[in-house]
Amino acid sequence: MNEIKIFSPATVANVACGFDVLGFCLDSVGDEMIIRKIDKKGIYITKIEGFDLPYETELNVAGVSALAMYNAIDVNFGFEIEIYKNIKPGSGIGSSAASAVGSVFGMNVLLGNPFNKTQLTEFAIKGEAIASKCEHADNLAPALFGGFTLVKSIAPVQILELPSPKDLYATIIHPQIEVKTSESRAVLPKDVQLNKAIEQWANLGSLVHALHTSNYNLIKTSLKDVIMEPYRSQLIPHFNEVKETALKAGALGAGISGSGPSIFSLSKGIDTANKVKEAMQKAYSKTGITFEIHVSKINIEGVKII
Amino acid sequence: MNEIKIFSPATVANVACGFDVLGFCLDSVGDEMIIRKIDKKGIYITKIEGFDLPYETELNVAGVSALAMYNAIDVNFGFEIEIYKNIKPGSGIGSSAASAVGSVFGMNVLLGNPFNKTQLTEFAIKGEAIASKCEHADNLAPALFGGFTLVKSIAPVQILELPSPKDLYATIIHPQIEVKTSESRAVLPKDVQLNKAIEQWANLGSLVHALHTSNYNLIKTSLKDVIMEPYRSQLIPHFNEVKETALKAGALGAGISGSGPSIFSLSKGIDTANKVKEAMQKAYSKTGITFEIHVSKINIEGVKII
Repeated sequence: MNEIKIFSPATVANVACGFDVLGFCLDSVGDEMIIRKIDKKGIYITKIEGFDLPYETELNVAGVSALAMYNAIDVNFGFEIEIYKNIKPGSGIGSSAASAVGSVFGMNVLLGNPFNKTQLTEFAIKGEAIASKCEHADNLAPALFGGFTLVKSIAPVQILELPSPKDLYATIIHPQIEVKTSESRAVLPKDVQLNKAIEQWANLGSLVHALHTSNYNLIKTSLKDVIMEPYRSQLIPHFNEVKETALKAGALGAGISGSGPSIFSLSKGIDTANKVKEAMQKAYSKTGITFEIHVSKINIEGVKII
Repeated sequence: MNEIKIFSPATVANVACGFDVLGFCLDSVGDEMIIRKIDKKGIYITKIEGFDLPYETELNVAGVSALAMYNAIDVNFGFEIEIYKNIKPGSGIGSSAASAVGSVFGMNVLLGNPFNKTQLTEFAIKGEAIASKCEHADNLAPALFGGFTLVKSIAPVQILELPSPKDLYATIIHPQIEVKTSESRAVLPKDVQLNKAIEQWANLGSLVHALHTSNYNLIKTSLKDVIMEPYRSQLIPHFNEVKETALKAGALGAGISGSGPSIFSLSKGIDTANKVKEAMQKAYSKTGITFEIHVSKINIEGVKII
């Protein structure tokens, strides 16, 4: 096999109480990429459709993660990468992570899978870092492993795969404005109140327990962000209104997806997730800001060959 | 039934990464109490053995929690409480929690169990508060529910029962010096660095996942306290030495039990827990400070009738 086509999914990071550590994988949105083995040594981006991104390998997220892997192997051939980008950069649903993951996943398959997913995360982190100006894996991990993931640490990379209750569905609204991860990080304080930190880790511990026990009511009461949301929500027009609307329509919880501007909600059952979609849609239509909206089950597979 | 004898167990709170929320229950140490229904209305402490504690109901931890329950019921009789105290006050293994829990658990049984454990926690919090100067439930919850518990919130009281891997044993050393919870709280900062908080909640989330999956290696790497331990360990003579000794002897992890001065460690298997005991014993014998040391399996039952 010399060529492979893959689907690299969008992801939701942070998930309210799990800033920098928690994430889950979507299946209704994602990029497609073709990875091709070529005689010439090196990594080449040969096609980019969908959004205007750099063709220079060292400047392209997918290129940088591919190079990180390429430098770790010793082969007398190279790779071409075609990127069919569906996830808008800066949307808050893991656009750069999808690119970073796609190239290394595809190359690994063509190489006969010499690397495990933890090692792929290590390569992908290098690509992710050029987009968000810091090394983090909270979108990479769910894109690679699927389902809900917890990044225990990034040095060394340690990813935990959490269970995904089967009736859990996400509704994601993506206002068509850009909030850069680097900007969204800049608004965060360096210190947090101890009592807020305690509340946050109580909720994170509870959410992990709730995922293990498929306790939807506990998922609901755990999906709270008392630390970041007050800062970051200010960068997202009509955030509070959309969140309230989602909760009123029956969502278990809602919050900022990654660093925004996308807003995610989780619901029990697809019917509720669709009701939440309609309610969010109605609320956001009034704002005059264009948006996209998706309902997605939790994608437990992650990046895959198509 | 007009009289009941109960065993109210010692507990370990915080458990490294779970400050203010996590705890587990011991079975080798605990108080005994006799609760007796009497004709005279009111709550009376009639006997205290073991340690010098106040007989005035309003000043006694067991008395205050008993009164909180007594004020919530309408009966034409009262209760006598005898306390056979084995857990030294200020030891860091939930001495006040054992007292606070014992009285309300015993009264509840004599009343025909009108209250559930969450409600008993609410009463017991009132007793705990007079000992530690703040309302918290991280020792009360494991004493009442047994096993590992996570206090999701105290207003309202919401306690989660986490699974206890069956080969998990605790070794607890208790230097015979007193560190008051209120003093130990005073050394803590009001603000914590965001990056430390993230590390702490990554470890807490991991520990909850590790308990659910009986993953002892993950328990090991999750048992870290990057926030409180640097402050509180200074109040405990030879803390770092004892911790290192426990880890070298094979413990999965070690840390301050509650607010100290007791130091807990967790091990896989009773043989390792005993080796850890011997090593800790040897190390602490050199300090000239008297101490007690216990090995205990995780007590999944909690407070009980004996």
